[in-house]
Amino acid sequence: MSLTVVGTMAFDEIETPFGKSGKIIGGSATFIAWAASNFVNPINQVSVVGEDFPQTELDALSTKGVALEGVQVKKGEKSFYWSGKYHMDMNTRDSLVTDLNVLADFSPVIPESYQGSEFLILGNLTPQVQMSVLDQFTVRPKLIVMDTMNFWMEVAMDDLLKVLKKVDVLMVNDSEARQLSGEYSLVKAAKKIMTMGPRYLIIKKGEHGALLFHEQHVFFAPAMPLDEVYDPTGAGDTFAGGFIGYLAKTRDLSFENMKTAIIVGSAMASFCVEKFGTSRLREVTHEEITTRLEQFVQLVNFDIDLV
Amino acid sequence: MSLTVVGTMAFDEIETPFGKSGKIIGGSATFIAWAASNFVNPINQVSVVGEDFPQTELDALSTKGVALEGVQVKKGEKSFYWSGKYHMDMNTRDSLVTDLNVLADFSPVIPESYQGSEFLILGNLTPQVQMSVLDQFTVRPKLIVMDTMNFWMEVAMDDLLKVLKKVDVLMVNDSEARQLSGEYSLVKAAKKIMTMGPRYLIIKKGEHGALLFHEQHVFFAPAMPLDEVYDPTGAGDTFAGGFIGYLAKTRDLSFENMKTAIIVGSAMASFCVEKFGTSRLREVTHEEITTRLEQFVQLVNFDIDLV
Repeated sequence: MSLTVVGTMAFDEIETPFGKSGKIIGGSATFIAWAASNFVNPINQVSVVGEDFPQTELDALSTKGVALEGVQVKKGEKSFYWSGKYHMDMNTRDSLVTDLNVLADFSPVIPESYQGSEFLILGNLTPQVQMSVLDQFTVRPKLIVMDTMNFWMEVAMDDLLKVLKKVDVLMVNDSEARQLSGEYSLVKAAKKIMTMGPRYLIIKKGEHGALLFHEQHVFFAPAMPLDEVYDPTGAGDTFAGGFIGYLAKTRDLSFENMKTAIIVGSAMASFCVEKFGTSRLREVTHEEITTRLEQFVQLVNFDIDLV
Repeated sequence: MSLTVVGTMAFDEIETPFGKSGKIIGGSATFIAWAASNFVNPINQVSVVGEDFPQTELDALSTKGVALEGVQVKKGEKSFYWSGKYHMDMNTRDSLVTDLNVLADFSPVIPESYQGSEFLILGNLTPQVQMSVLDQFTVRPKLIVMDTMNFWMEVAMDDLLKVLKKVDVLMVNDSEARQLSGEYSLVKAAKKIMTMGPRYLIIKKGEHGALLFHEQHVFFAPAMPLDEVYDPTGAGDTFAGGFIGYLAKTRDLSFENMKTAIIVGSAMASFCVEKFGTSRLREVTHEEITTRLEQFVQLVNFDIDLV
């Protein structure tokens, strides 16, 4: 039940209406690993960091069962750095600084020990880098999940379409689904995108929840209504980590189990936004996760007598 | 199990990206009655129309079990008329014309035959008019639901607060909940609004579903993802009609049954938006409603093994 996670490990600096984070740890693979490590072990991490990336962070992940052989540490270079500021609605943000640093020429290498991974998740990276990861697996993982973003649709659509043909699950947000398909209706967009390769499509709508499409089926998971969303950074990656972590744990790829995995992803994301960066994910307990999942049952469960 | 519905019966003229409706029948009480009549009978309608309102429309409602004794027909006057144009996202619209006509001095009179109604829904009207309806009931209905809008928060907040003290369920959209409470977080907004009178708060989020709050409980119902939303006009009133119609039918005011009623409301709203105005609601069958409710079960139902 091994899981390989490919993505960024980085520094973030975030400003929200509630305060400033200072320079903290972020990156898609970081959030995915923290979320998934609650469900599956080992996690085969693939990423790149600079010499400035704290050893304590790597050690903390190790302790949670994350293998770091595939994480390149570039001597004399700096880690990927992003800073951004959220608006009052917490749904929109401005990027203030994006320094690619080590990410600029990231060429991931899948270690021999990672071969045979049954589950693979490709965090948001250039489609070429995502493809190079797929090419390195001698046996195709049982389930390949990928994330992407609107930027690649604008500058690397041909490469993106090639990767799409090779994955099982695509995760995008609603505006990206519209852009990729050219359809405004998300139902129509989903139908079109599922002809491009992925058999499953997850459309993330932030505070408005997430939709899972597969063949003629559709499932909706809400976001947990919270007193306060403190920092949405990494919520989508945390959602992805909970989703694939639960699938890797249960090894059940039925649509019914995918539904549950989406709820698990939503539960993990609901923790993520409660504090800056990964701080809430680091401290969350098995008991808290179970309680949150019970809250999701209460949130959406209803009985109806269909006559 | 009688239900009294107070609201507008009117003409609408709507333009969406899909076409123009021409002058058609609309009004909050119209949509509520069409939706609720699938569940409960009789419906005691309270409204006002002009001489121009088609008798065929009144007859059609009569046939569905809607009592019209409380509908005033003003000789020589015109019915309320609204025209609007939806933007591409179907969530925002511009009002083009609003002619109050008979609504300008609407003074509802509750007929003696309506006394004893167990369920009462106050569609969006001036708070003063809503209060005058409440004052006319010799026995307080078992459940009072009210709708309102941001406009009354701006021009008649004091009166609105007085009505709020007397109702059980308030229905507003997300921006109205924020405006009424002064809180951005909908969870915080709900807590505050529930101190103003209503024991239940429903926050409608259009295509993003609806939230039901009561004490410490929260329930979420999604909107059904549809290939196309053709015309959102009246969807909120249709939702309200399905909600109170189902409650009046089942006469069960437990939170569990309120959850089901919210799903029924969402199902009825999902029909409403499929065609212009009330056209889809007029033709919907019991069998179609049952099928749609089954789709809602599929849409949100999940199994989880909480260990």
